[in-house]
Amino acid sequence: MTKIFKYIRNIHYYETDCMGITHHSNYVRIFEEARIDFMKKIDLAYDRLENLGIIIPVTGIDLEYKNVSKFAQVLRFESAIVYFTGVRMTVQYKVFDNETDELICTGHTKHAFVDQNFQPFALQKKFPEIWQKFQDWNLHKDF
Amino acid sequence: MTKIFKYIRNIHYYETDCMGITHHSNYVRIFEEARIDFMKKIDLAYDRLENLGIIIPVTGIDLEYKNVSKFAQVLRFESAIVYFTGVRMTVQYKVFDNETDELICTGHTKHAFVDQNFQPFALQKKFPEIWQKFQDWNLHKDF
Amino acid sequence: MTKIFKYIRNIHYYETDCMGITHHSNYVRIFEEARIDFMKKIDLAYDRLENLGIIIPVTGIDLEYKNVSKFAQVLRFESAIVYFTGVRMTVQYKVFDNETDELICTGHTKHAFVDQNFQPFALQKKFPEIWQKFQDWNLHKDF
Amino acid sequence: MTKIFKYIRNIHYYETDCMGITHHSNYVRIFEEARIDFMKKIDLAYDRLENLGIIIPVTGIDLEYKNVSKFAQVLRFESAIVYFTGVRMTVQYKVFDNETDELICTGHTKHAFVDQNFQPFALQKKFPEIWQKFQDWNLHKDF
Repeated sequence: MTKIFKYIRNIHYYETDCMGITHHSNYVRIFEEARIDFMKKIDLAYDRLENLGIIIPVTGIDLEYKNVSKFAQVLRFESAIVYFTGVRMTVQYKVFDNETDELICTGHTKHAFVDQNFQPFALQKKFPEIWQKFQDWNLHKDF
Repeated sequence: MTKIFKYIRNIHYYETDCMGITHHSNYVRIFEEARIDFMKKIDLAYDRLENLGIIIPVTGIDLEYKNVSKFAQVLRFESAIVYFTGVRMTVQYKVFDNETDELICTGHTKHAFVDQNFQPFALQKKFPEIWQKFQDWNLHKDF
Repeated sequence: MTKIFKYIRNIHYYETDCMGITHHSNYVRIFEEARIDFMKKIDLAYDRLENLGIIIPVTGIDLEYKNVSKFAQVLRFESAIVYFTGVRMTVQYKVFDNETDELICTGHTKHAFVDQNFQPFALQKKFPEIWQKFQDWNLHKDF
Repeated sequence: MTKIFKYIRNIHYYETDCMGITHHSNYVRIFEEARIDFMKKIDLAYDRLENLGIIIPVTGIDLEYKNVSKFAQVLRFESAIVYFTGVRMTVQYKVFDNETDELICTGHTKHAFVDQNFQPFALQKKFPEIWQKFQDWNLHKDF
């Protein structure tokens, strides 16, 4: 069973800029969509976690833009958990044109696990089942 | 003393779209910037009001787009409170090219005054000084 | 056959604001998504029209916000062409919670048909088949 | 004379999310604002360069988020060109609370110089004065 998830979606008109291409900031936003989408699929929905007091802010991002994309282009966002300790997590992303498989962009988001006061806490101790689920889906390396 | 406030700002690259112009949704956002800016000037800063438990959500908007604007163009957002009852408020906006005075867009935002549970409450009774300040800056008609 | 189209999508994390709700400007953007989605379904894809030199800028919008929505909430955007002359068009929108059918927001966007230099032109004469298609899907009244 | 530029601006309401903080994607956008602002100051305005056929897309970004910021908080974006070859450029950024000097975030954007068809070209040969200006403002190292 693969631990790499797919999220397919087209580029919206308002996501383009006057260079005629998708504005680079929007990939950061769609990374978030892709991440939230796969976390829901593995029964770790963001809103459920936030209701439990588990907040997962982004602590770092990096992206490399390989090719431009345009309005109405259909992109496939592949993502996976590639590092997880219970305190920190890294998610990796690869973005392709969904038809041609042309590589559009790659990147990572880094995350911390904090409570509603943005304080770190022992996820493994407080929510062992949730910790286990993250661990189960951990690819342990870049894909 | 005028009750019409000015907020001047240039269009950002990421606010344009592949038509080469400012995306129409961004005027709604800059209306908010202009509104928050003048409310701060009249000692009704949004964050202070929210700390007091006074939330002012948008209940309606209308905009007419007269001319396009482009990246780096400097626009002047003129705005005023044109209707205020303590329960409801309307703010009007006119947007001009700041150099040529060409009219770019006009519009209104409608607002309700609610508490942190989104319930209406008696602003005049609970915060008479704040109510008075809104009333003082009320233009009572479109400009 | 209905002329009212449905576009279903959940609210993204980055579309919420510190009031804890969907920022009002985002409905304007999702109206655009819904409009572009149904135009593609009736073989009037935006990118195809733009390649033909048919540009359809927004000339006006109005929205009424009835109820708030939140992160991860699934909304149903219903939309229809309610006015079309070949020179101007109005699209109407109603937004519902997709499960409870609670009404979230209603609105309209007004449009002009212009060429790539933003000049009006005779759509009916120059592209009679495209004109006919818009006419066929015209509901002729609010729904 | 310093080669590090300052861009000061407050966080807008629509830039916050339901976590109550500035959404991480918005720093990417404000980096762009800061970069475009200092390029204008050194007579390398983006719109002038684009009119000359010099396009400077973003080819990579990295950010580290150190502390959260909130609605209405005034941030100071410090930025400088830290690498420039005529073919590629890196801009570095440091973001501070403008009052307390608390470090909010750091990062880089990487850029290529291409023509309007997104093809690389010899900036130094074709526009030696513009090349020289980038070179003059090059800090040659991270700050």
